[in-house]
Amino acid sequence: MYEELLEMIENKKYKSVKESLLEMHVQDIADLLEQIESPSDIIKVFRLLPKDIGAEVFSYIESDIQEKLVTALSDKEISYIIEEMYIDDAVDFMEEMPGNVVERVLRASNKETRLMINKYLGYQEDTAGSIMTPEFIDLKENTTVSTCLKRIKRLGENVETINVMYITDQARVLKGVVTIRDILLAEEDAKIGDIMDDNVIYAETSTDQEEIARIFKQYDFIALPIVDKEKRLVGIVTVDDIVNVIEEEATEDIALMAGATPSEKPYLKTSSFRLWINRIPWLIFLLLSATFTGLIISKNESVLSTGIYGILLTACMPMIMGTGGNAGGQASATIIRGIALNEIEFKDSLKVMWKELKVSLLIGVSLSVLCFGKIMLLDGLLFKTEGVTAVSSLVISISMLVTIVISKLVGCMLPLLAKKCHLDPAVVANPFITTIIDILSLLIYCNLAIAFLF
Amino acid sequence: MYEELLEMIENKKYKSVKESLLEMHVQDIADLLEQIESPSDIIKVFRLLPKDIGAEVFSYIESDIQEKLVTALSDKEISYIIEEMYIDDAVDFMEEMPGNVVERVLRASNKETRLMINKYLGYQEDTAGSIMTPEFIDLKENTTVSTCLKRIKRLGENVETINVMYITDQARVLKGVVTIRDILLAEEDAKIGDIMDDNVIYAETSTDQEEIARIFKQYDFIALPIVDKEKRLVGIVTVDDIVNVIEEEATEDIALMAGATPSEKPYLKTSSFRLWINRIPWLIFLLLSATFTGLIISKNESVLSTGIYGILLTACMPMIMGTGGNAGGQASATIIRGIALNEIEFKDSLKVMWKELKVSLLIGVSLSVLCFGKIMLLDGLLFKTEGVTAVSSLVISISMLVTIVISKLVGCMLPLLAKKCHLDPAVVANPFITTIIDILSLLIYCNLAIAFLF
Repeated sequence: MYEELLEMIENKKYKSVKESLLEMHVQDIADLLEQIESPSDIIKVFRLLPKDIGAEVFSYIESDIQEKLVTALSDKEISYIIEEMYIDDAVDFMEEMPGNVVERVLRASNKETRLMINKYLGYQEDTAGSIMTPEFIDLKENTTVSTCLKRIKRLGENVETINVMYITDQARVLKGVVTIRDILLAEEDAKIGDIMDDNVIYAETSTDQEEIARIFKQYDFIALPIVDKEKRLVGIVTVDDIVNVIEEEATEDIALMAGATPSEKPYLKTSSFRLWINRIPWLIFLLLSATFTGLIISKNESVLSTGIYGILLTACMPMIMGTGGNAGGQASATIIRGIALNEIEFKDSLKVMWKELKVSLLIGVSLSVLCFGKIMLLDGLLFKTEGVTAVSSLVISISMLVTIVISKLVGCMLPLLAKKCHLDPAVVANPFITTIIDILSLLIYCNLAIAFLF
Repeated sequence: MYEELLEMIENKKYKSVKESLLEMHVQDIADLLEQIESPSDIIKVFRLLPKDIGAEVFSYIESDIQEKLVTALSDKEISYIIEEMYIDDAVDFMEEMPGNVVERVLRASNKETRLMINKYLGYQEDTAGSIMTPEFIDLKENTTVSTCLKRIKRLGENVETINVMYITDQARVLKGVVTIRDILLAEEDAKIGDIMDDNVIYAETSTDQEEIARIFKQYDFIALPIVDKEKRLVGIVTVDDIVNVIEEEATEDIALMAGATPSEKPYLKTSSFRLWINRIPWLIFLLLSATFTGLIISKNESVLSTGIYGILLTACMPMIMGTGGNAGGQASATIIRGIALNEIEFKDSLKVMWKELKVSLLIGVSLSVLCFGKIMLLDGLLFKTEGVTAVSSLVISISMLVTIVISKLVGCMLPLLAKKCHLDPAVVANPFITTIIDILSLLIYCNLAIAFLF
């Protein structure tokens, strides 16, 4: 999308590049910088930007390019960028940098900023503290609307939002909230205390960002005040950060459900070694747990493989285990997502099990009828597989029905149990669900087959 | 969380209920209403609310309770609610209602609202048109800041946001954007045309909501203007709707990846029959495709089951197929999510394949070494399974290595191909990936075993 610009950069037509840059949005300039191959070109293009735009662009650049830039920039340039950035962006940036870069940046910033950044770096990752910003407007109850408007004029440039403002008392304790709309619709001499909403919803610095996201969704907020243990206002979280939180949490759950540790970085920026680390643990677990399925098969195979049914029974094994895994996976994915969205809680367990029982019977009956037909017609008549009879087809179909019901119940109960034990349903549930379903479906299959066919 | 209130409602202490309601946020009142069991109590509690609060609460209630309410309310009450709702909420509401309710509501609303709702009901689901609202403030370039502030005072109550306003010309063509911050920081006699940003980002009514969400994330917007084919401003989308879109899209992808059609409603509100419909198609597909794996096994089993290796080879089959499925699933989930987040495009295919090749070799080598040890020690020494020798363990381990490499490559390529063919990677990829990996891993396994062990 930036082919033309990238070509101009390669041909060193910096004057035209600069003209184009000045017409672009800062986020798009950041995208462009990320697409430049040569590190020296990145720095040249960055220096074409006016100082204030450069600082803003910087906060939108991906961390590996930020690191390259910081290494090449002068202390003065770094200092300017850091002072201009919102504190939450500066903290995000510092968290991604290696130690030596952090040291250099802190040395280059002024004392006040340094203290602020250090304080924010202290909040635990994924808490409200780690995503909040201290740059908000706070008001007192006895301020008038007209004084407030003057305050906005003075501070408006340097705060992250003026759409919502918070009211605190002398001890900085949170008292109320007022929107810019409330202020603009009120009389000039009205007191903020009279137009504010004193029933204000807030969160603590230690609250998990997932919970913060839930609050935003519930109330359609564009900002949420964050307080310390004494209910003193220390920062605000804005909705643009929450959009990212919601997306990250979903990405993490998807990775966990597929049996991989979530990556911190986008796929293309994650090293192969890192991907190996992320993916190998579950595969090892499943490999070792395959010992159980192996044992069940080798114990029963000496019986199963005798007689005319041997080949048919072995041939249908992947179908039974696969259907069990898929049926259970459908249930667990639905329940895990439902729990993540707060739509399902542990107290709904009985309702959930009852529903899954009904669904699994519907699915089990329809699939086992289909399975019976498939074995008789496809495997028996068409492919003439040895051992296809009405009895053997029926036994296999009934195994499938039982497997589906058990798999769905395991698939819905384990995430709920994980939640009850304060474990992440997405992490705990998956390896166990797969293993348990594999073992159960094989046991059902082998036992039913031996009971009725031998 | 509302136990006390629910008890008061049951005991008909309506006076205290009303007092508590007046101190609650509208979204929490909506939650409370959803938790009341008896339909007549829902209506009684709803009628305790002052008219304007009731109308606001109504737009936050889930559609099945909305339907119950509408059936019980008088035409006059319905009319008041509809007029008070934002058009986008009213349209959402109407889309969920059965035909007879829609008719009654439209009859109860005034002509202007009726026309507006009908127009909005015409936009395709999941497009910008279907989630936008026409209630915004538009300005002209030659308006002054002070006139603009007066306009806000007059219209402020009835628009969805005053944080961002849009500038249009005589033909209603979108010309620029201005934030409330720009306006408050400007001089009273400044012209809007001079302080607006004329480089305004917008979307068309037909743009997919996923693309709209992408724009919000890229630019940290709180609202986005939506135009028709002639670039005339027809509505805005606000960030609170986008938060829902992002979450819905992730939920849909999770359902699809688990092989189920996404539900429109939360799990507990979805009927068992609906869940059956959502889940059965993929299970049928996989059941039928198991014919292939069955054929491969029955063709090879007559060879495999002869000699000392028979039991071991059958016992390890689920392990090989399972590992292939899991390894491929990890790759496809990562790539599908990467494509959904716009981090991976078709042009990155070679990079992706190269990365997956490296990762799969790392995983394949480490897992097959582990597999060799596991078979020799656990299956051989500990459980004394027949047929465990260095050669048979090696053949099984090499099959595992090859299966992992092939599975990862299939898992990463199919989502990319689906994207290239303008299909949803999450839909197309999964059933095919599972089937293809099952077939390939069995073919590899059987052929290697027969070549080296018989």
